[in-house]
Amino acid sequence: MTDRNIQVQSLDRSAVEDDAVEIVERKGLGHPDSICDGIAEHVCETLAREYRDRVGHVLHFNTDETQLVAGDAAPAFGGGNVIDPIYILVVGRATSHYVEADGTEHHIPVESIALEAAREYLRETLPHLDLETDVIVDVKLGEGSGDLQDVFTDDDDGPAVPMANDTSFGVGHAPLTETERIVLEAERSLNGPYAEHTPAVGEDVKVMGKREDDHIDLTIAAALVDAHVPDMDAYIAQVEAIREHVFDLATEHTDREVTVHVNTADDYESGSIYLTTTGTSAEQGDDGSVGRGNRANGLITPNRAMSMEATSGKNPVNHIGKIYNLLSTQIAEAVVAEVDGIRDLRVRLLSQIGRPIDEPHVADVEVVTEDGTAVADVDAEIERIVDAQLASVTDLTRRVIDGERTTF
Amino acid sequence: MTDRNIQVQSLDRSAVEDDAVEIVERKGLGHPDSICDGIAEHVCETLAREYRDRVGHVLHFNTDETQLVAGDAAPAFGGGNVIDPIYILVVGRATSHYVEADGTEHHIPVESIALEAAREYLRETLPHLDLETDVIVDVKLGEGSGDLQDVFTDDDDGPAVPMANDTSFGVGHAPLTETERIVLEAERSLNGPYAEHTPAVGEDVKVMGKREDDHIDLTIAAALVDAHVPDMDAYIAQVEAIREHVFDLATEHTDREVTVHVNTADDYESGSIYLTTTGTSAEQGDDGSVGRGNRANGLITPNRAMSMEATSGKNPVNHIGKIYNLLSTQIAEAVVAEVDGIRDLRVRLLSQIGRPIDEPHVADVEVVTEDGTAVADVDAEIERIVDAQLASVTDLTRRVIDGERTTF
Amino acid sequence: MTDRNIQVQSLDRSAVEDDAVEIVERKGLGHPDSICDGIAEHVCETLAREYRDRVGHVLHFNTDETQLVAGDAAPAFGGGNVIDPIYILVVGRATSHYVEADGTEHHIPVESIALEAAREYLRETLPHLDLETDVIVDVKLGEGSGDLQDVFTDDDDGPAVPMANDTSFGVGHAPLTETERIVLEAERSLNGPYAEHTPAVGEDVKVMGKREDDHIDLTIAAALVDAHVPDMDAYIAQVEAIREHVFDLATEHTDREVTVHVNTADDYESGSIYLTTTGTSAEQGDDGSVGRGNRANGLITPNRAMSMEATSGKNPVNHIGKIYNLLSTQIAEAVVAEVDGIRDLRVRLLSQIGRPIDEPHVADVEVVTEDGTAVADVDAEIERIVDAQLASVTDLTRRVIDGERTTF
Amino acid sequence: MTDRNIQVQSLDRSAVEDDAVEIVERKGLGHPDSICDGIAEHVCETLAREYRDRVGHVLHFNTDETQLVAGDAAPAFGGGNVIDPIYILVVGRATSHYVEADGTEHHIPVESIALEAAREYLRETLPHLDLETDVIVDVKLGEGSGDLQDVFTDDDDGPAVPMANDTSFGVGHAPLTETERIVLEAERSLNGPYAEHTPAVGEDVKVMGKREDDHIDLTIAAALVDAHVPDMDAYIAQVEAIREHVFDLATEHTDREVTVHVNTADDYESGSIYLTTTGTSAEQGDDGSVGRGNRANGLITPNRAMSMEATSGKNPVNHIGKIYNLLSTQIAEAVVAEVDGIRDLRVRLLSQIGRPIDEPHVADVEVVTEDGTAVADVDAEIERIVDAQLASVTDLTRRVIDGERTTF
Repeated sequence: MTDRNIQVQSLDRSAVEDDAVEIVERKGLGHPDSICDGIAEHVCETLAREYRDRVGHVLHFNTDETQLVAGDAAPAFGGGNVIDPIYILVVGRATSHYVEADGTEHHIPVESIALEAAREYLRETLPHLDLETDVIVDVKLGEGSGDLQDVFTDDDDGPAVPMANDTSFGVGHAPLTETERIVLEAERSLNGPYAEHTPAVGEDVKVMGKREDDHIDLTIAAALVDAHVPDMDAYIAQVEAIREHVFDLATEHTDREVTVHVNTADDYESGSIYLTTTGTSAEQGDDGSVGRGNRANGLITPNRAMSMEATSGKNPVNHIGKIYNLLSTQIAEAVVAEVDGIRDLRVRLLSQIGRPIDEPHVADVEVVTEDGTAVADVDAEIERIVDAQLASVTDLTRRVIDGERTTF
Repeated sequence: MTDRNIQVQSLDRSAVEDDAVEIVERKGLGHPDSICDGIAEHVCETLAREYRDRVGHVLHFNTDETQLVAGDAAPAFGGGNVIDPIYILVVGRATSHYVEADGTEHHIPVESIALEAAREYLRETLPHLDLETDVIVDVKLGEGSGDLQDVFTDDDDGPAVPMANDTSFGVGHAPLTETERIVLEAERSLNGPYAEHTPAVGEDVKVMGKREDDHIDLTIAAALVDAHVPDMDAYIAQVEAIREHVFDLATEHTDREVTVHVNTADDYESGSIYLTTTGTSAEQGDDGSVGRGNRANGLITPNRAMSMEATSGKNPVNHIGKIYNLLSTQIAEAVVAEVDGIRDLRVRLLSQIGRPIDEPHVADVEVVTEDGTAVADVDAEIERIVDAQLASVTDLTRRVIDGERTTF
Repeated sequence: MTDRNIQVQSLDRSAVEDDAVEIVERKGLGHPDSICDGIAEHVCETLAREYRDRVGHVLHFNTDETQLVAGDAAPAFGGGNVIDPIYILVVGRATSHYVEADGTEHHIPVESIALEAAREYLRETLPHLDLETDVIVDVKLGEGSGDLQDVFTDDDDGPAVPMANDTSFGVGHAPLTETERIVLEAERSLNGPYAEHTPAVGEDVKVMGKREDDHIDLTIAAALVDAHVPDMDAYIAQVEAIREHVFDLATEHTDREVTVHVNTADDYESGSIYLTTTGTSAEQGDDGSVGRGNRANGLITPNRAMSMEATSGKNPVNHIGKIYNLLSTQIAEAVVAEVDGIRDLRVRLLSQIGRPIDEPHVADVEVVTEDGTAVADVDAEIERIVDAQLASVTDLTRRVIDGERTTF
Repeated sequence: MTDRNIQVQSLDRSAVEDDAVEIVERKGLGHPDSICDGIAEHVCETLAREYRDRVGHVLHFNTDETQLVAGDAAPAFGGGNVIDPIYILVVGRATSHYVEADGTEHHIPVESIALEAAREYLRETLPHLDLETDVIVDVKLGEGSGDLQDVFTDDDDGPAVPMANDTSFGVGHAPLTETERIVLEAERSLNGPYAEHTPAVGEDVKVMGKREDDHIDLTIAAALVDAHVPDMDAYIAQVEAIREHVFDLATEHTDREVTVHVNTADDYESGSIYLTTTGTSAEQGDDGSVGRGNRANGLITPNRAMSMEATSGKNPVNHIGKIYNLLSTQIAEAVVAEVDGIRDLRVRLLSQIGRPIDEPHVADVEVVTEDGTAVADVDAEIERIVDAQLASVTDLTRRVIDGERTTF
């Protein structure tokens, strides 16, 4: 058995799938808030790898504060342009000077690394954004706090388990409801396979799902890219194509009634439509910052408990808010994958400051079982899975650093 | 009766007061995230008033994206100093040029107004911060989107009810649990009456409350101000004084067992303590931004449904996320104040894009009644209150503009 | 006698006073370039004094790169306002961390010092500029180069004479011609006694003097301050009053014919006049930077040899360009004050990298004598004065640090 | 004959070639001040061409205020890296919105154009600078002043000659002295043919020439590029190779005695050498800005009259300071090329505000003739050339826009 304080109990409410009203939102990759989340996390991963490669372990840093100031653009059928570039300020702290016990000195070019990582992320994520004309990337990284350096230096034989740096809280859920899965998949499809064949679809795709009983209403705001939209007819056709694509995708995941709306604020007569030059509303008027959008599981789910903690950009070695948000989600998914009879599951991890992060103050697992299954039937197996997941927490850190986990 | 879609039903869970584990947090006025929330909202109120005074009604703007980049400081017993100033970037959009129907032109100095409002807020909120040496306030306000100007211009006879600009969602709760009330009051007391007589207490006070059954654990991180702390003994005495003050305050609000911890990360031997020059951790290492901290009711409550929407800095006339977060909270408070027998109440407002904001797609009220009260006993009265509150939504906007409502 | 390489010879040209055409310009205190010069020098003096007070001697720094980005304003008779604040970026290098030989560590808050000094300078120099609304002061100071620290640390018994850090060149002239004196005095009077009784006159006063034979033409561009100009009549009266004032002042200094033009670009009919809210054209459209305006003697004199080196903001202890520009001017003034029969004098100092700054590679004095005086009559006395001035070069440094010398 | 006020007279001094002491300096392409000049001018040319292509004529703009804030770097034999990126702020005014007489509206993306032009210039000029990691390019362009728009719009049949916008002054000289030619050619060779075969030589090459009678002393500061310098021996060999190259080049231009010094501040023992990662000292500690370095003829010549006016970045259509500096140089060169018997020539052009720029207040040509030639022999021919050059001033503007003239 385990010494960890793991509690499995019945959730005192019904499954979200059974709520009368359910609301789910996903801000796509090109949404200004997501751009900031993505930059913050890509800078974070890159810095962590650089530290590992240069010094042998990750040093103190946090890069969870990217701010995007929207530009100004003049989109036009067939191709317009950005007038005032988007301004992106990458903010955080990072250790640029490190002395090993044997006196070896390291100067780590943290601002240059951050700058390159941010630009690289933009280049890969927003192919319609011209990095030479459309965006200014600025960086302000303070020096990492001296007091915190020690946290990371003590990993002689195998990665040590760091101590919690704060009293914090993470929460995860599984499985996704139908509405959640549809919202998530709709954005991923539009920003993935669909976009590959349809360059007219920009990356700023926002999907709002609302389910009332057995009716699912999907509202999609999709930025179209002007260079690939010759005229209003093409625009209208593309909007309809997106609607159909999402409708088809949704009906594969549900038997409920589905309605899809795309770019509902358009007014064809006045010519007020969602046309962009770069594929993101950041080009004109929509600012963004880290931690204001999707939670660690990629969704905003007001029906479920959520953590306010920004996950993107936080140090993956010891930032307890980041680790517990990712870990609780991973635990929930693992339990649902391995244990039958679970209709809804909520995992909450509460840290104890100054204790190893694999020993939370409490790991609280609340479960809604399916008819025919009692909590007592599954609690031992759940506890075992939770215990194993906590024991391998440093493996999660490694996977985050290697870019194998999304954070938004 | 009303045409509004108001639904009152039983909440399918117990009251938060009855949860086995409850977590509540409040970031105090001087926390970097709260500083950003406060600046964003103060700039917002000031701009709204300026528009009203100059043009007669509020024009398009949003100032919900302030970014704070921490400085560097060398605090010392008796008084240290800031080495690198804090950098604060006020970001948003605002209409600087407006032409009335009769051709009268207005040039509104929005950046100057924002600059002054931000500095004014800092001066009033952080008395230990020297605005001449410790902080750089920068402003980047884009022009308000032309498409959106029309929303605001049509208020000839009495304030018109604007249309919802988005599909969005607000949620409010009442009454506060004991733990919530204690967390809220502890910060307000430390930043209010207590600070008046104790200048050693900085404004960056963070309160974390954790209740397990009938034990409430309060963890307080309070930045002390070096000019008022002559030595380590004085520091230790001040920390203990805070602990006692909060303990006394807490026990006035609850009969549960209470434990209070203050500045638990201190290490007196190494001299690693929470001493600052300015009263905020923004002076060294802690960045901040809008919408990452307290929700509209002043708290972070993972036990309750929360909106991710930043409330501070959003346009109070038509930003549906801001309005519905504030309104749902106000509705919940009004219902609990007027209706007996309610143990817990959740109000959710879901907007319908393009419809007047006083006609939400649904106003969903879920209630946990006390023993002896049935939902059927109270639903008509609740519905009446909700209806009246929705009808007077423009009054809420006015009170926000006049600074009578806090947003964080 | 002296070991210094001092050469006195006849200047192979006539005195500037005898040139057929002479051009002289002075950018007044409120001109955007002068604002930058003034901030750079005030930051420089303040830093130098702080180093002296904290560490005992001046450490490596240079702050000679302030950049001003003009704002936008809407001046109006009776009082307008600034719409977009002026943005001022103070740039340079400064040593923020210093360890004495005995291990005593100093953390010097160089960015905070620079910020405060810049704002202080603006407050004192531009009384019509509201620092809370009209200007954003930003600071980017890099760390002083490690290699250069040693230059300054070796001053045990009395200030040592530093080594020249560069091959550089300084040039000074005396006496001023009539035109030069008039241009200088006109600006100083308008920005001094005259402004005290005439708040309508802003600090951005530019004086251009052109002499053709015995006719002096003065062209003045003077920013008027809208709050003190109620209407067009008042504006026109004020312009005329300035013209008269300068005419009277000029005729006290010369018997030549004088014409004065003020604000010649004004067009009263179209209302296009030189009216400002802040007293400087930096409020709208005129950017500025260091070293683009007046030379060390306060003038731009294309008839004379000039150094391109910016004097303001440079380290007064060892920056050879700054020291030699100030010193050569001081030498020229001293010679003319003490030696009779000199009509024009040019002093050039050329440094020798790696040699003490009081031993220039060459001190080249070229003289135009008055009728009846030969170079041979005065060269010995001149050489003595030059030698004495060079010997007391560290005294010049002290006076610069104490703000007793202007640099622009 | 002509109505232009052209005056040809004898210069009241000897030719600079005959001065006892002559000082000449050139800051090479990679010097921080030259980088700023180059960016400012390249942005200027690009904007002017864009205006011409989009609107048919150049609109109001000036981009003469680029500020460079040095980065921090850790160069190392074989290849080091930049730690903190260089920060470059492109500053100016430009017209982004233009309405033709027929109502056609133009939105010109001036900030995007400036951003791209600045980055393009860096990419082409500094091949060792990695634009993804080593530099942040920021842009702050205000709107062009409304009052000034009209200046440019009136060019129906052939380019009209604009009116002078200021009382300003330009000065040019010809021919170059031997020392001037050597200084200019040394830098051009090192940054041209020599660099092509020697990647170890960076672009930041500063050449200082000092002639005393018949001895020419050349002091060269040349940044070497670490990736192409494997060790100290290679460094020393490269420094010597540069010395030899410049010595050979110099002796082709003069029969005077020549000494060449390279990187005299190096200290091989302490390892303090001029090694860089990017080829420019901007990577560490040397800030830069426009107008602080070379004059319009590419040189700093304290022996000659110089204009303080920054030439780079100024509007080539009507900025009189820019035009007259370039034009006076071009006139001087044309005269010397066509007229025999001239040893030294100085051309000064003084504008008359409000008059066409081809009609200066005075065009003042001062000449030192060779033995056997009198001013009276050449003045008519000179006047004819000056007149023709003034008449074709708009052709100069065109060539500047087309990048056929250097400005620094």
